[in-house]
Amino acid sequence: MMEKSTCEVILQPIGKHIRIPVGTTLLDAARQAGVELVAICGGEGVCGTCRVCPVSGPVSPPSLTEQAELTPADLSAGMRLACETEVLGDVKVDIPPESFTTPQRLQVEGQEAPPELAPAVAALDVDAPPPSLDDLRSDLTRLREALPDPDIHTGLPVLATISETLRRNNWRVRLALRGDELVAILPPGEGLYGLAVDVGTTKLAAYLVNLENGDTVAKSGAMNPQIAYGEDVISRINHANQHANGAKTLQGRLVETLNGLVDELCAQAGVTPGQVVEAVIVGNTAMHHLFAGLPVKQLGESPYVAAVSDAMEIPSAELGLCLAPGAVIYLPPNVAGYVGADHVSMLLGADLQETAKTTIALDIGTNTEISLFHGRKHWSCSCASGPAFEGAHISDGMRAAPGAVERVRIDGEAVQVHTIGEQPAIGICGSGILDAVAGLVKAGLVDKRGALKGEHPRLVPDDKNSAFILVPAAQSGTGRDVHVTRQDVNEIQLAKGAIRAGLEILLVEAGIEAREIQQFIVAGAFGTYLDLDSAIAIGMFPELPRERFQQVGNAAGSGAKRLLLSNRLRQVATEIAQAVQYVELAKHPDFMKVYVKALGL
Amino acid sequence: MMEKSTCEVILQPIGKHIRIPVGTTLLDAARQAGVELVAICGGEGVCGTCRVCPVSGPVSPPSLTEQAELTPADLSAGMRLACETEVLGDVKVDIPPESFTTPQRLQVEGQEAPPELAPAVAALDVDAPPPSLDDLRSDLTRLREALPDPDIHTGLPVLATISETLRRNNWRVRLALRGDELVAILPPGEGLYGLAVDVGTTKLAAYLVNLENGDTVAKSGAMNPQIAYGEDVISRINHANQHANGAKTLQGRLVETLNGLVDELCAQAGVTPGQVVEAVIVGNTAMHHLFAGLPVKQLGESPYVAAVSDAMEIPSAELGLCLAPGAVIYLPPNVAGYVGADHVSMLLGADLQETAKTTIALDIGTNTEISLFHGRKHWSCSCASGPAFEGAHISDGMRAAPGAVERVRIDGEAVQVHTIGEQPAIGICGSGILDAVAGLVKAGLVDKRGALKGEHPRLVPDDKNSAFILVPAAQSGTGRDVHVTRQDVNEIQLAKGAIRAGLEILLVEAGIEAREIQQFIVAGAFGTYLDLDSAIAIGMFPELPRERFQQVGNAAGSGAKRLLLSNRLRQVATEIAQAVQYVELAKHPDFMKVYVKALGL
Repeated sequence: MMEKSTCEVILQPIGKHIRIPVGTTLLDAARQAGVELVAICGGEGVCGTCRVCPVSGPVSPPSLTEQAELTPADLSAGMRLACETEVLGDVKVDIPPESFTTPQRLQVEGQEAPPELAPAVAALDVDAPPPSLDDLRSDLTRLREALPDPDIHTGLPVLATISETLRRNNWRVRLALRGDELVAILPPGEGLYGLAVDVGTTKLAAYLVNLENGDTVAKSGAMNPQIAYGEDVISRINHANQHANGAKTLQGRLVETLNGLVDELCAQAGVTPGQVVEAVIVGNTAMHHLFAGLPVKQLGESPYVAAVSDAMEIPSAELGLCLAPGAVIYLPPNVAGYVGADHVSMLLGADLQETAKTTIALDIGTNTEISLFHGRKHWSCSCASGPAFEGAHISDGMRAAPGAVERVRIDGEAVQVHTIGEQPAIGICGSGILDAVAGLVKAGLVDKRGALKGEHPRLVPDDKNSAFILVPAAQSGTGRDVHVTRQDVNEIQLAKGAIRAGLEILLVEAGIEAREIQQFIVAGAFGTYLDLDSAIAIGMFPELPRERFQQVGNAAGSGAKRLLLSNRLRQVATEIAQAVQYVELAKHPDFMKVYVKALGL
Repeated sequence: MMEKSTCEVILQPIGKHIRIPVGTTLLDAARQAGVELVAICGGEGVCGTCRVCPVSGPVSPPSLTEQAELTPADLSAGMRLACETEVLGDVKVDIPPESFTTPQRLQVEGQEAPPELAPAVAALDVDAPPPSLDDLRSDLTRLREALPDPDIHTGLPVLATISETLRRNNWRVRLALRGDELVAILPPGEGLYGLAVDVGTTKLAAYLVNLENGDTVAKSGAMNPQIAYGEDVISRINHANQHANGAKTLQGRLVETLNGLVDELCAQAGVTPGQVVEAVIVGNTAMHHLFAGLPVKQLGESPYVAAVSDAMEIPSAELGLCLAPGAVIYLPPNVAGYVGADHVSMLLGADLQETAKTTIALDIGTNTEISLFHGRKHWSCSCASGPAFEGAHISDGMRAAPGAVERVRIDGEAVQVHTIGEQPAIGICGSGILDAVAGLVKAGLVDKRGALKGEHPRLVPDDKNSAFILVPAAQSGTGRDVHVTRQDVNEIQLAKGAIRAGLEILLVEAGIEAREIQQFIVAGAFGTYLDLDSAIAIGMFPELPRERFQQVGNAAGSGAKRLLLSNRLRQVATEIAQAVQYVELAKHPDFMKVYVKALGL
């Protein structure tokens, strides 16, 4: 009966797992996991600050205290007080941002290339004649006839504002025009802005851009709220398929969060959402389809095809995104089911659209998309690298959040670690586990097959699952060792093997050797924080002169901003998606051989 | 205190008014008004059939019987049992169709010209290749490349259906294409249909049309549900302006009723709403704006201009009308604030778009729109004729419903009346009051100013408001006299004076005399049932040879059907709206003089 008396709590969005006795409160569970929640009263149930939202698994019913401290709206939304809620089985809990004592690391900046300024939407100031008994033309007719070219088109959301906006501004207004399409009727003098968003499976990065000068006037990030319905792409697709309105729920939660980001960005910049006249939103194919309300069932079944791969322009009103009434959302094209618009955007953000160099560009995630440019040709593939670098399937793994070990150096008997936010260690994130495995390899403490062996004071031998202690219990934030196990090393082998194998297959397709790679672009959050030497040491990346590597940060976000500012680049995006040769690894004759070789350390 | 002990009940949608003692039940009030409600148990409160919906004014709270007989949904929607609900003051009550014992007269057919068959949407059968690991193109790409011309466009609602429809039909489907726009992906072999609706202020007439052969395969009618929020255009505009979400409510109620009609029409014809690939909806400018969600405030304030007068094409999904996912709703152009798309549609329905004859065409309502065609020119105006011909402001007035006197003949001392449905008379509708006034004029019982005088057994003299009894109490359905009063005669004078004055002003503009009118088209429900001799006798219409008159029924509905079937006619509609010279009567120098002259009998 021992196994029934403990249960596992997963704390989202940071991805920290903890095993605790049944009956523990969520506040205690978080404390034992080293995660500090706001709890002003110290867990006495009187301050109402330790708000959390259990999303699955059994917990105690709301107590009288909670019924007093929480609003009916909170209660019906499933909100609870962590100090009052007891865990009765395996449970997943969503912690809202305001309940963390330490802010989360949400955003990585991309490198900024000088923007090409030719946005799709431009401003035009007009004076329309007011109506009278002698001039009974409709409001649209009189606005149209005040224009140099009266042949404009518009939709209902803009027309719904026309009569009041004209009258309130005494018939002098600024129009936002997208070619011959009227996007908004604004008070005179108001500036035009654009929204760029990188919708990651885990995180959202949003930018507000001045369309006249290309300046980024505000930026913000948030967790992807769909995490509550599944950590990875496949579990989101399953949620959409298996629940009535599942897809609608995922779409609605995302749009709600995006609307919150728009409000926040506009407040930062002192503008109104009505001035945001265009948006570019990039994401992988599943995020793209879920956002647009496209079917995802076929994305989850072999041969994993997209419903739509073309670039799309969608009225923001149709998706419930509250921008200017006629604002259009541009979604760049997808390459394939698992090489999405975010990859295309990343290539543009890294300025690779016209590269003449032999170039590898990749963004490491649960799926790692890799592009190879060589001799004016372009190949891409998607590797099932798994979530190990996001801290999942790793015994002490967690996302890159405060308290995560992000750097490890093993120097003889000395083990140096660095944690995010200089907090006591509570777990290990992707760059930390990468460093740790590389350090173990360099120290000769791990064999080719991933077994931990040899002599080291931190090595704890075990027939099945030997471990290496990175942070001893006495110095950790959890009161337990933070360690790397043999199983963890094997998970990293699977991940790095998949990435290296994909890369090698692209080289085979191009008929070149790794040493011919002239530039090696590593994009994305993990790609920014990872240590290149470690990545090379474990064989994830080929041994190349270090100066050929560039860690470019959130290039997908930078690409989205560039697409916002340049209509021409959108054409380039379509050309990229059409020209790329997608290589399906699953059916490549060399794949298994290359993969098995790539697994070794 | 006498006046406090009685109150007025208005029974909608038939427009019957009755004064009753406070405390009377709604069932008794209806009975006294001669309106038969379904009440299977005879008013014992046990059958739950006499369901009504009080929309304004004080009534008794729901009884225990009602709480038992009605569902919570009914109760929260304000539904009541007429037998249990006591009237506590002036009250307006909406009677749902199923609570009437006699079906209402909802629809008037228009004359059918042979349809010109060139609809906007056509069918195309395609076989798309299924995906495989060797062919990972997206579903849209593979569908597109199976087409003769792959350059098609479509929106999210269609794309949301693409993956499942292709797979369920083994990649063999029928596309509905509107030029290069994909409207629907259907199972192979399914026929394409169109919806035509005339949205009157009072009634809706809806038709389902086979787009391949032009046949009307189903038709139905309903009351405009917005009646509950105001009987006429101005009170609807006021409701929209004065209530938060007022316009949204009016739009939502209309769309809900239209969706009900679509379901009914589809069931009649054995097709699915997904096969309805296009719609044409016509209405006056206020109905048009409220349906499309356009602003109406400025329509209710001088100089009464439309927000939009151009023809519009709106995705049905945007308005919540459940047709094929990419179906477009075409709304013909408006001429002015009070000459709407329904008038343009009426002219097309009566085949007047190329008339070379000097022609008057009018549709009598609360506002009467008149067109004059002469010498290749076209003038139109709108007359504030008021609701008298719809039975409002008439002491025993009601709409054209069972029990309404619709024909009157005064032949010496004999008075012959005919009622709708041969029911005992409970009131008078428009054609009845027109006949009655004409009969009184011909019998010399009314002077030029409208006073009832002379000797007749049915004439009841009174200094202020003499009356003429059409149906004595003993023969009526209410137990009271059904009569015409001097005030009623005056109301009819105002209405016919406005119509005749508008007509005369158009003749002045064209510089012609009434006798030069070669054809005189009378459209609409009242126009179909009215007696031409009566209309001429009271001076509403000019004295012309009878063969020049044509009563064409619901020509606006016929026009909507023709617009559904012919893209070319839509261009003609725009040409009509652009070419017409709108004459604003309020500022015409001759109007008052002509109007005063037109008032006389």
